[in-house]
Amino acid sequence: MPLMPKLTDDQLHPDAREVFAQIRAARGSDYVNDIWRVLANDPALLRRTWEQTRATMSAGALDALTKELIYLAASITNDCEYCINTHTAAARAKGMSDAQFSEMLAVVGLANQLNRFAAGTQVELDERYRG
Amino acid sequence: MPLMPKLTDDQLHPDAREVFAQIRAARGSDYVNDIWRVLANDPALLRRTWEQTRATMSAGALDALTKELIYLAASITNDCEYCINTHTAAARAKGMSDAQFSEMLAVVGLANQLNRFAAGTQVELDERYRG
Amino acid sequence: MPLMPKLTDDQLHPDAREVFAQIRAARGSDYVNDIWRVLANDPALLRRTWEQTRATMSAGALDALTKELIYLAASITNDCEYCINTHTAAARAKGMSDAQFSEMLAVVGLANQLNRFAAGTQVELDERYRG
Amino acid sequence: MPLMPKLTDDQLHPDAREVFAQIRAARGSDYVNDIWRVLANDPALLRRTWEQTRATMSAGALDALTKELIYLAASITNDCEYCINTHTAAARAKGMSDAQFSEMLAVVGLANQLNRFAAGTQVELDERYRG
Amino acid sequence: MPLMPKLTDDQLHPDAREVFAQIRAARGSDYVNDIWRVLANDPALLRRTWEQTRATMSAGALDALTKELIYLAASITNDCEYCINTHTAAARAKGMSDAQFSEMLAVVGLANQLNRFAAGTQVELDERYRG
Amino acid sequence: MPLMPKLTDDQLHPDAREVFAQIRAARGSDYVNDIWRVLANDPALLRRTWEQTRATMSAGALDALTKELIYLAASITNDCEYCINTHTAAARAKGMSDAQFSEMLAVVGLANQLNRFAAGTQVELDERYRG
Repeated sequence: MPLMPKLTDDQLHPDAREVFAQIRAARGSDYVNDIWRVLANDPALLRRTWEQTRATMSAGALDALTKELIYLAASITNDCEYCINTHTAAARAKGMSDAQFSEMLAVVGLANQLNRFAAGTQVELDERYRG
Repeated sequence: MPLMPKLTDDQLHPDAREVFAQIRAARGSDYVNDIWRVLANDPALLRRTWEQTRATMSAGALDALTKELIYLAASITNDCEYCINTHTAAARAKGMSDAQFSEMLAVVGLANQLNRFAAGTQVELDERYRG
Repeated sequence: MPLMPKLTDDQLHPDAREVFAQIRAARGSDYVNDIWRVLANDPALLRRTWEQTRATMSAGALDALTKELIYLAASITNDCEYCINTHTAAARAKGMSDAQFSEMLAVVGLANQLNRFAAGTQVELDERYRG
Repeated sequence: MPLMPKLTDDQLHPDAREVFAQIRAARGSDYVNDIWRVLANDPALLRRTWEQTRATMSAGALDALTKELIYLAASITNDCEYCINTHTAAARAKGMSDAQFSEMLAVVGLANQLNRFAAGTQVELDERYRG
Repeated sequence: MPLMPKLTDDQLHPDAREVFAQIRAARGSDYVNDIWRVLANDPALLRRTWEQTRATMSAGALDALTKELIYLAASITNDCEYCINTHTAAARAKGMSDAQFSEMLAVVGLANQLNRFAAGTQVELDERYRG
Repeated sequence: MPLMPKLTDDQLHPDAREVFAQIRAARGSDYVNDIWRVLANDPALLRRTWEQTRATMSAGALDALTKELIYLAASITNDCEYCINTHTAAARAKGMSDAQFSEMLAVVGLANQLNRFAAGTQVELDERYRG
């Protein structure tokens, strides 16, 4: 059970209703993920978070699929079940193949392993990489 | 100071020497990062780790720059100074622009924020994303 | 299923029984959270952990609700489901309002985001903050 | 060395200059922390991040010092050197006493310990805390 | 539901089938844990991961139970439910007693607490421990 | 610079002085690590933390070196520079060989990698491991 109630469309504050309309327009779908229904309890937080998400995840210098893979790498490292499931679905919707998913996972695993090798050995940064 | 000594080329076990030759060939450079000089204290671990790195980071279904960005996303989430510095340099060498770096960073920041919103609200996964 | 059995009152070692009496007295309730029933398998660990908890979470220079919010911030950052649920309940019992919960969550999300911006940019500490 | 250059006031894009003016006004000080000088390389990211920070950290249902303590709890859990140093200074500036600092630290340590006890025992959430 | 299908023996690529034979031989059991059935979707990743696991977890300078306890310490710190459950079972199978489990847990909790005390106080490394 | 001052022996509160005497007796050395000099600013916290450390790290069902290795596994996973350095020294003092150090590191790296594979694939726990 979420610790904040999931709001139905009927329960939305007018400000949250407006954000939901933007989410639906941007996604081209009537479905709104439950995390937004929970954040809708605080319409100002909902708006800030949605605007940040839209600005951050839209294609720019990086395409939208690459951004989903980066998002997944962070979420897997944090072991966020909700985020891993929803963003794997988003990446699939943006064309992620089985091979791409598998390669992303291998890179995340390697990075987590080597991050710990660097920590455990306390290797210092090579002089050539210091500014 | 690293907790395992950094080995010079002269100090390498023959098995480690062979791995260093592979690293140099794959990188097209005589320079070998210090983390390998530390791992060289255990030649079997060095070999396994290098072979895994080469197999994982080479271009495949994902191109090599995308893999560096994924690697960075995990390393930033873990706050690994060594890994962030060396793989930002690697990403730059593979063509990462300032705008791509900045967008990657924004995505990592957003993911870490939303991972915590999901945790803090204990929102359950939407039924549509359950298998 | 827990990996250590949850002990019923009947199964408690006398030392654990004594700690449970202290927990009940301190909480003003007969209910003892299941984590204590699990830790009760090691009465010495139970006692140390309870005494540390009581000493740490009681009102002092910080009031008890502020301590719960700090506890939640750490537990959300670690994504500890058990701890988030039980300490959100504890914070509610100590008077946390919906607005306070939402603001705490926003701060935790922001901190996690900016922690990663600091890591990803490897910004050095401003000279004025160095001792 | 930061991986993005720290911009001096002279190097700021007009949009970043405007944000710096807001930071100075809000802080009542001419000094701008280096993290903002680094983020200024991406004026849109700078603006979003500053507006989120101002909205999140200002006193509301929680006072500004409590928010700093929550921010510190997350940053300590993530071991973010930059954030711990700058926000401890911010908390001090908002009146944090030695005893409050010490109690905050004790709570963060306890939470991190108990988060691991919950993980290691895989204790399930007590029925009474399930929605 | 896993995000990659769990493959039955009938669905295995010949390369994966060969790895499964090695797993069965090494474990002395016909049962293959589900994580391998998921990784089997990428036979090259399956092979690398299995070979790394066998090389790393076999008794060497450290006995196999000590390695399981170290594995658990990392997995508990990361709060990995799958890994905690399967490796607690593995440690039990290798003779871990109730008292050893409890002591391991106490050490992991203490380390996580003191890691945060070190971070929160920003204590510098004593000169005697610098290389 | 630490955020709490390191106290010299002369600056100790009598309660902290007593704890320092216990640390010296237990360690059989006059040297007291700087983290204790920092925690000494809060004598009650110092005492609780020292008593917990002594009770937790002393040989019991697990020997003292195994406990150091478990402590290191958690500290490396958390990337705690202070803790990694001081506890590697402690493990060395308790007889850790180069090969044991290297094997511990390999296990920690593997665990961190497989923790992420479990997270990224969202593999469910095998029925046989559910209670």
